Amino acid sequence: MSQIEQARKKIITNQMKIVALSEGVESSAIRSVIMNGSAVITRNKRHSIEPVAIGKGFRTKINANIGTSQDKCNLKEEIKKLKVAVSAGADTVMDLSTGGDVDSIRRTIISESHVPVGTVPLYQVALDAVKKGKSFVELEREEIFEVIERHAEDGVDFVTVHCGVTRGSLERIKREGRIMGIVSRGGALIAEWINYNRAENPLFENYDRLLRIAKDFDMVLSLGDGLRPGCLADATDRGQVEELIILGELAQRALDEGVQVMIEGPGHVPINQIEANILLEKRLCHGAPFYVLGPLVTDIAPGYDHITSAIGGAIAGAAGADFLCYVTPSEHLRLPTAEDVKEGVIASKIAAHAADIAKGVKGALNRDMDMARARKALNWDEQIRLSIDPGRSKAYRESSPPTDKDVCTMCGSLCAIKVTGSE
Amino acid sequence: MSQIEQARKKIITNQMKIVALSEGVESSAIRSVIMNGSAVITRNKRHSIEPVAIGKGFRTKINANIGTSQDKCNLKEEIKKLKVAVSAGADTVMDLSTGGDVDSIRRTIISESHVPVGTVPLYQVALDAVKKGKSFVELEREEIFEVIERHAEDGVDFVTVHCGVTRGSLERIKREGRIMGIVSRGGALIAEWINYNRAENPLFENYDRLLRIAKDFDMVLSLGDGLRPGCLADATDRGQVEELIILGELAQRALDEGVQVMIEGPGHVPINQIEANILLEKRLCHGAPFYVLGPLVTDIAPGYDHITSAIGGAIAGAAGADFLCYVTPSEHLRLPTAEDVKEGVIASKIAAHAADIAKGVKGALNRDMDMARARKALNWDEQIRLSIDPGRSKAYRESSPPTDKDVCTMCGSLCAIKVTGSE
Repeated sequence: MSQIEQARKKIITNQMKIVALSEGVESSAIRSVIMNGSAVITRNKRHSIEPVAIGKGFRTKINANIGTSQDKCNLKEEIKKLKVAVSAGADTVMDLSTGGDVDSIRRTIISESHVPVGTVPLYQVALDAVKKGKSFVELEREEIFEVIERHAEDGVDFVTVHCGVTRGSLERIKREGRIMGIVSRGGALIAEWINYNRAENPLFENYDRLLRIAKDFDMVLSLGDGLRPGCLADATDRGQVEELIILGELAQRALDEGVQVMIEGPGHVPINQIEANILLEKRLCHGAPFYVLGPLVTDIAPGYDHITSAIGGAIAGAAGADFLCYVTPSEHLRLPTAEDVKEGVIASKIAAHAADIAKGVKGALNRDMDMARARKALNWDEQIRLSIDPGRSKAYRESSPPTDKDVCTMCGSLCAIKVTGSE
Repeated sequence: MSQIEQARKKIITNQMKIVALSEGVESSAIRSVIMNGSAVITRNKRHSIEPVAIGKGFRTKINANIGTSQDKCNLKEEIKKLKVAVSAGADTVMDLSTGGDVDSIRRTIISESHVPVGTVPLYQVALDAVKKGKSFVELEREEIFEVIERHAEDGVDFVTVHCGVTRGSLERIKREGRIMGIVSRGGALIAEWINYNRAENPLFENYDRLLRIAKDFDMVLSLGDGLRPGCLADATDRGQVEELIILGELAQRALDEGVQVMIEGPGHVPINQIEANILLEKRLCHGAPFYVLGPLVTDIAPGYDHITSAIGGAIAGAAGADFLCYVTPSEHLRLPTAEDVKEGVIASKIAAHAADIAKGVKGALNRDMDMARARKALNWDEQIRLSIDPGRSKAYRESSPPTDKDVCTMCGSLCAIKVTGSE
């Protein structure tokens, strides 16, 4: 039985108990949000990890994308990124490998990871097509589902599936016009398949088959936003909203079948549209957890998109988004390095934490209050220990030693705490 | 005559004309916002610079703090920070020097700067006291005003003056209780002076004198928030709001006397309180420009406080804040390096730009739309040129050259633009 089915039978599963402990929430409350679909527990039956809950009432979670590409393929480097991401605070990782032996890479990452692992099987479908001497658009439906099954059997905890890119939603995009068109890789592949075959998206048409695969492994379906905007000017347009409506209907069907589901969201969104995007998702998808990519609040900052995304992610999280996909400084420019992964995770963690304080997640402010007390006491060891990245705090402070150990080299004897007296 | 007085006489000054050009706004509209105090033009009569307008209807501006400290005193390094800050996009700088010959440092920075320069004269007052063998609290009122006059005569374009720290507002802070107490250096000095002398804050009591100095040089008064919160838990408390009420009254007196004024604001503020803070300032200060420091949306991220501040600054700007003081990655740890200054300015610039898009500043989205078109066209030279930091974009891309020059090493042949066709 899936988590949802057990929840319906009033069973509190081990996974729910573990999540209850890590979130500081009653396990009966967890049962209830799993049952009504406003939260998910990401854990494939075949993957022995600590389950992670995403959704209503829980800490905002963050995901780090790792994986090889065609131009950069080094498994050791990707395993290093996995370790860096998790140690910097990533709650989940997605293996988006598209270079080398992706089956073997995925299996290694799954076995090495103590946190849930997600994938986008369509990428591998596209790579396999090339190996078979075909174009993606020439693939049979069967060949798409076969890869998704393989991922599920390997123990993938959640998969992105672009079910909402349909003939109808594509038509809407075309009619309205967009600067950037489609910027989701999976969305672009499906759109090409639809156009070439003049047929409906197999992931939409054969959605029941997807539900069966997901249910067999209690794998969470992450309904991808293949039509997400790739620039601010395209945000919240008819195509994007049409896709979200479709995803809402599909989420309901999943819930009816006892399959856990979350919804993916944009992307590039101006600050003044973020709250409306969250509200729309929560309403159109009946409260399903919302997994946002960024959002990036400007298009002009490649090299700093971890910051544009931290801004968007914090606002989204505060407004109710449940899960933030990190963005690294390398976004739009190159495959990220391990250092980029760390920067991306920390920026995203800051956004999620600030959001949790804003939305009143239990205990979220505690560490901030401890930090404030340490600052008032001029207790530098404690300030370093409480930092989101103690190593960096220590290095910065040590690089610039103050004459008076109580203060720092910015204010010296004019330190306000020193002037008024630490208590 | 000051800018305000000329505006009242329906004179459109040269400064207004220059600002009109750089903002793309009618000069008559500028006259009107200067007249009613909802915007200021920061330019001391003695400083030949391009004037910068801050306030209603204009781009959100950003300030970079530079200057020596007691532990780190190297004028050449500070001049380098000035250049780095301006070239990265700072609209103004504040010289907060507290180490070495601060008169000479200030004069050098003013003469080297093409952008408006602000200062906090109280820091120098405190340093001078030590030179005279006195404690700050033993100073006569005269000794405080003498330094402010010196700054005005040197051509400082705006000064922070902590007029709202009064016996009453201090009493409120004490009665309610705070974790961090006072964290503003100027605020702490004034509080100590008040407590020691059992007398009212000279900057409050002799405010008319301050107005006369400011008016003589058309120097903008930036009414400091000496009681700003130093941690999230202290945000928006009675002491902070009491000070803001006082600053509102003082701003009105300044406007009546033809003196330009802006209001400084927090500090450390949870995301869900930022909008209310902006609204409060706009209402209590009758629309005076709001100059916020950050705000920082969590206390636990020293080493990354440019990011916590970019989040807060973007939200504040979108809600109506007019002027963002940058925060560098070194905040809370050390005097920033030139590299920190660059990181801080760019993070703040991203926040201001994203805010301008959200609040509908004319033309704010244009560069984003150009970037979107360049991305759709796979035109990498143009993408680099349009970047907020072209050097970094170029370096990142060149560090990881793709096999196919059309794409990058993240997506390779799966690039969504490539898959769907660039047009």
